[in-house]
Amino acid sequence: MTMADLPEIRPGEVALPGGIGATQDAGVVFIGRIRTPWKRGDCPRNIAAARERMSGGSAVDTAQRAWIELDPRFAPALTGLKPGQPLLLLYWMHNARRDLLLQAPRHVDAPRGTFALRSPNRPNPIAASCVTLLRIDPAAATLEIDAIDCFDGTPLVDIKPWIQMIDMPPGPADG
Amino acid sequence: MTMADLPEIRPGEVALPGGIGATQDAGVVFIGRIRTPWKRGDCPRNIAAARERMSGGSAVDTAQRAWIELDPRFAPALTGLKPGQPLLLLYWMHNARRDLLLQAPRHVDAPRGTFALRSPNRPNPIAASCVTLLRIDPAAATLEIDAIDCFDGTPLVDIKPWIQMIDMPPGPADG
Repeated sequence: MTMADLPEIRPGEVALPGGIGATQDAGVVFIGRIRTPWKRGDCPRNIAAARERMSGGSAVDTAQRAWIELDPRFAPALTGLKPGQPLLLLYWMHNARRDLLLQAPRHVDAPRGTFALRSPNRPNPIAASCVTLLRIDPAAATLEIDAIDCFDGTPLVDIKPWIQMIDMPPGPADG
Repeated sequence: MTMADLPEIRPGEVALPGGIGATQDAGVVFIGRIRTPWKRGDCPRNIAAARERMSGGSAVDTAQRAWIELDPRFAPALTGLKPGQPLLLLYWMHNARRDLLLQAPRHVDAPRGTFALRSPNRPNPIAASCVTLLRIDPAAATLEIDAIDCFDGTPLVDIKPWIQMIDMPPGPADG
């Protein structure tokens, strides 16, 4: 991607002077792709809206399904996953800016810090979403999920079982 | 880290033949470090155990606190975060193996797929945990959190506001 493809800076937004700099403290391998019906200009505003448009993930129309195409060499790593369980997906927002400190998305009043937003624009453009696993085909290395709000072809970085103790704030009793 | 430092393969575990290969589909920048009282051989078994040992994060003894030392150039990106709010942290498990497909941790009966485990050993060793923000010092670029179960000095990859709609499985009403 060239710099020309990056989102433009809006009024009130602040970028790191000189840009993000080197981003090679560690390397990421893309383990697959997320397949969705969404492309630029026609993406639900969030995952709840994606679920609504996918009729809860049970649509028979392939055009309204969301699934993961895993790199087949990782298929054995799916062993033990069960349909119906919640998953935490990490994926790479490859069209994002990595140098923004303050951002002014349309839904907030005043510019807000990148770490106070779920914007794809962040120093490491890794998105996280909790989805439900619907079907799993280890032979094809594919997993159908209920819904997600990213573009078709988004690179996948990780699949984790969602676990309440790790992935939810502690309740008063867990203090 | 040399190969000699990697965890050994246990009986029943399966690694990718030839290793993980190139991991340069994308680059990660470490945005800070997580400071904890934990080191190898003395780390709580999970985040709930870490919370217990930290007395709910309110200990006055510095040795029992957990905090983030953010790279100061990112301090403006904290704007809008509020003490008390839950955060989703992503961090890099730099002592992990990236080539394991099936793993046999002590707490499971039979080897299980990497994507069905929260083990640090995974193709992209990025851990995710939900923590509570206790205090924030933008001038020092530090954030105190309630607890976390990683080693002192673990590299930080991202800070996100935890949002129920994105980070929890949909309820029956959210269909």
